[in-house]
Amino acid sequence: MLEILRKEVCAANLRLVREGLVTETFGNVSAVDRESGHVVIKPSGLPYDKMAAKHMVVVSLESGETVAGDLCASSDTPTHLELYRAFESIGGVVHTHSTRATAWAQARRNIPPYGTTHADYFFGSVPCARPLTEAEVRGEYEANTGKVIVEHFLNAPNEPIDPQQMTACLVSDHGPFAWGETADAAVTAAAHLEIVAQLASETVNVEAYPRMIPQYLLEKHFMRKHGPNAYYGQS
Amino acid sequence: MLEILRKEVCAANLRLVREGLVTETFGNVSAVDRESGHVVIKPSGLPYDKMAAKHMVVVSLESGETVAGDLCASSDTPTHLELYRAFESIGGVVHTHSTRATAWAQARRNIPPYGTTHADYFFGSVPCARPLTEAEVRGEYEANTGKVIVEHFLNAPNEPIDPQQMTACLVSDHGPFAWGETADAAVTAAAHLEIVAQLASETVNVEAYPRMIPQYLLEKHFMRKHGPNAYYGQS
Amino acid sequence: MLEILRKEVCAANLRLVREGLVTETFGNVSAVDRESGHVVIKPSGLPYDKMAAKHMVVVSLESGETVAGDLCASSDTPTHLELYRAFESIGGVVHTHSTRATAWAQARRNIPPYGTTHADYFFGSVPCARPLTEAEVRGEYEANTGKVIVEHFLNAPNEPIDPQQMTACLVSDHGPFAWGETADAAVTAAAHLEIVAQLASETVNVEAYPRMIPQYLLEKHFMRKHGPNAYYGQS
Amino acid sequence: MLEILRKEVCAANLRLVREGLVTETFGNVSAVDRESGHVVIKPSGLPYDKMAAKHMVVVSLESGETVAGDLCASSDTPTHLELYRAFESIGGVVHTHSTRATAWAQARRNIPPYGTTHADYFFGSVPCARPLTEAEVRGEYEANTGKVIVEHFLNAPNEPIDPQQMTACLVSDHGPFAWGETADAAVTAAAHLEIVAQLASETVNVEAYPRMIPQYLLEKHFMRKHGPNAYYGQS
Repeated sequence: MLEILRKEVCAANLRLVREGLVTETFGNVSAVDRESGHVVIKPSGLPYDKMAAKHMVVVSLESGETVAGDLCASSDTPTHLELYRAFESIGGVVHTHSTRATAWAQARRNIPPYGTTHADYFFGSVPCARPLTEAEVRGEYEANTGKVIVEHFLNAPNEPIDPQQMTACLVSDHGPFAWGETADAAVTAAAHLEIVAQLASETVNVEAYPRMIPQYLLEKHFMRKHGPNAYYGQS
Repeated sequence: MLEILRKEVCAANLRLVREGLVTETFGNVSAVDRESGHVVIKPSGLPYDKMAAKHMVVVSLESGETVAGDLCASSDTPTHLELYRAFESIGGVVHTHSTRATAWAQARRNIPPYGTTHADYFFGSVPCARPLTEAEVRGEYEANTGKVIVEHFLNAPNEPIDPQQMTACLVSDHGPFAWGETADAAVTAAAHLEIVAQLASETVNVEAYPRMIPQYLLEKHFMRKHGPNAYYGQS
Repeated sequence: MLEILRKEVCAANLRLVREGLVTETFGNVSAVDRESGHVVIKPSGLPYDKMAAKHMVVVSLESGETVAGDLCASSDTPTHLELYRAFESIGGVVHTHSTRATAWAQARRNIPPYGTTHADYFFGSVPCARPLTEAEVRGEYEANTGKVIVEHFLNAPNEPIDPQQMTACLVSDHGPFAWGETADAAVTAAAHLEIVAQLASETVNVEAYPRMIPQYLLEKHFMRKHGPNAYYGQS
Repeated sequence: MLEILRKEVCAANLRLVREGLVTETFGNVSAVDRESGHVVIKPSGLPYDKMAAKHMVVVSLESGETVAGDLCASSDTPTHLELYRAFESIGGVVHTHSTRATAWAQARRNIPPYGTTHADYFFGSVPCARPLTEAEVRGEYEANTGKVIVEHFLNAPNEPIDPQQMTACLVSDHGPFAWGETADAAVTAAAHLEIVAQLASETVNVEAYPRMIPQYLLEKHFMRKHGPNAYYGQS
């Protein structure tokens, strides 16, 4: 099982490069095996062109300690673990510094649903979690990065945000995190997020204050793809 | 005849990828055979790298029902059908979420003719049809999407807009539709639209409120390419 | 001689595609043989992927009439001829709709020298010639397009602009023209213009009203590359 | 030793092309051998596709005179020499006109740390050195270009800026210079600078006046990668 997961996580990391979502050694993808309580994640700072499945590091979901692998796990591992612990439905997590989504995170702005392309993927504004406090940065920084995301989803003003309907979150001053049922699905969500962020940036460029689309249009597009009676795609 | 049309429609769909007008499973191209009353269209949600002519779906122009093909037709099929029914001169329809044209649609703005490149292809502002009402979204959404385009062309304030002179329309909050005598010509129109939208966005970036070109210049450029005495290209 | 020129002009036209300066059938390059009084130019509307030296059309510099070639000359031929007649030092002319330079033309703005990259190539603002009047558009449109460029250079407010020091001009609402000693040099000038226009657009994006660089810096950079005591490059 | 350095400098110059940091004959990379007092640098105006290690020019760090090589050294050589003389810890220098960093230089603006991607590489705003005076431009222009960078680092308002913590500087109206322990490390710094400049431009596009990230976050990200207790990457 772990060998399969290592291959999947390695393939998902390499897909980040092909999709143009990372440069340098940026970005990291992980997956969780909930039965064994193991998380498989990219090693820290390893160039993508030298990456193989055997390099993937296995850590304990509970303790965060390395269980298998010769290399150090990604320094963002504690963020991934926080997300897996709080969002029990997800199986893969990805972090990138993709250009357009990162620009919105740097501007500390939610990405509003400016069009149906957004609604095809994300059921509402993609949220931008609050900046970490000085104490949070000086403390368990990477774990706290995960915690502000979780806080945003579980303490949302009206009701909790469902991580299955909103599969991404920006972190203020930092960049995007995305997730899904598998490592590959998480990368797909990160790719969708970058498309949506690019469209939003281009829209702002044409019209300084575009409006969000109406809620009924948002529901229509999201539900025709993801709802119980979805009719997009092959059944 | 249908087999030829299936090949043409499949080739036109694959051209969308080559032209950079679609990502993921976005976009769809169709063509109509007016003699038999059949429309050939891309199947819903099928990845482009697995697409072959045999996958194209044949539906009835009149009823919209599937006549041939093992897969579900594009969920946007009713939009295509509305356009074929109202615009009798067209033979192919395309829908994309191409970045720059979609940005203008998301800004709910017509694309004004800011230069002669625009005038080479489109005889006036590329219109942006009105947003659908809540009832229209909750009702026959995809058919209504076609109807607001048709409404805009046939109920234009001064006189009807000729779909042969204006071969594209944006739909507010959504994205562009384009058409032509064939499926391939429709893709060409969608490519021209994206070029023109990109130039307009870049112009707005340089000058916040650019002027439209004068009507006589618009006429000159459109007519030297498309008018009865056109002298662009080889006779 | 004409066969060599046909090859050069064809190669220069194909270089436009490689440099990303044209899409579709846009753009045209020509060269003049001043001894014989012949201009060799791209045929009108011919796709670049089917273009060969034998397709290049030969016209008379004096009369504009076709002297050799089976195809129609570019519809912009009269613009090229006006430039050759007025600017006796130039041997090649190119017209493109390259994205960034065209955006400045559509905004009817000179491209100011915002940095030394500009100064490396162009000795001052790249001018934007005035819009054509309705009479000029309805009359000999393409010849008049050349005439507004010539007017701008020869009737410049202070003194004539030297087409050897300023190797490009925008035409309002339309796009860029560039020139040089040969067809290939003209394409190089068009490529430099697009680089400079892109930098200017990105600068405007960062700072709404950037300043022009001081005249002494403009002189320094232009002259160290192009002046009598140039010391850039190999002697 | 010099032959190895020539190969390294040539390889670093060619990497500029692969990284998309230069077009035409722009850009130049050098390296210093402090033991022998030699600097190896790209020749002036040589096209990248014809460049080989044997073309690299060797000049004296002290006098600037050519010691070996058949070609003229880059006209920017005196800038490189000023940097090597003042910043004793650096081994390689690079100059590019990369699009986004040059746009900030043309806007005469520091690049503020708008996000943690910036903080991963640069410990504070990437400074923009003051414009040269007319006397400085008319005098030893290229040497003075280096001197305004050195002045900015050594005369910084509070305390000197450490060129090991800030590995790049913009020059007003001109473009970026970057450096590192080796020629290759200098190119890496130039690539990081372009990424950071692009993110900053896109952030400004989304939010006109973005805030800098707090100092404690800047420290956290820089130090977890570059500090004495860095825990990013493999130990």
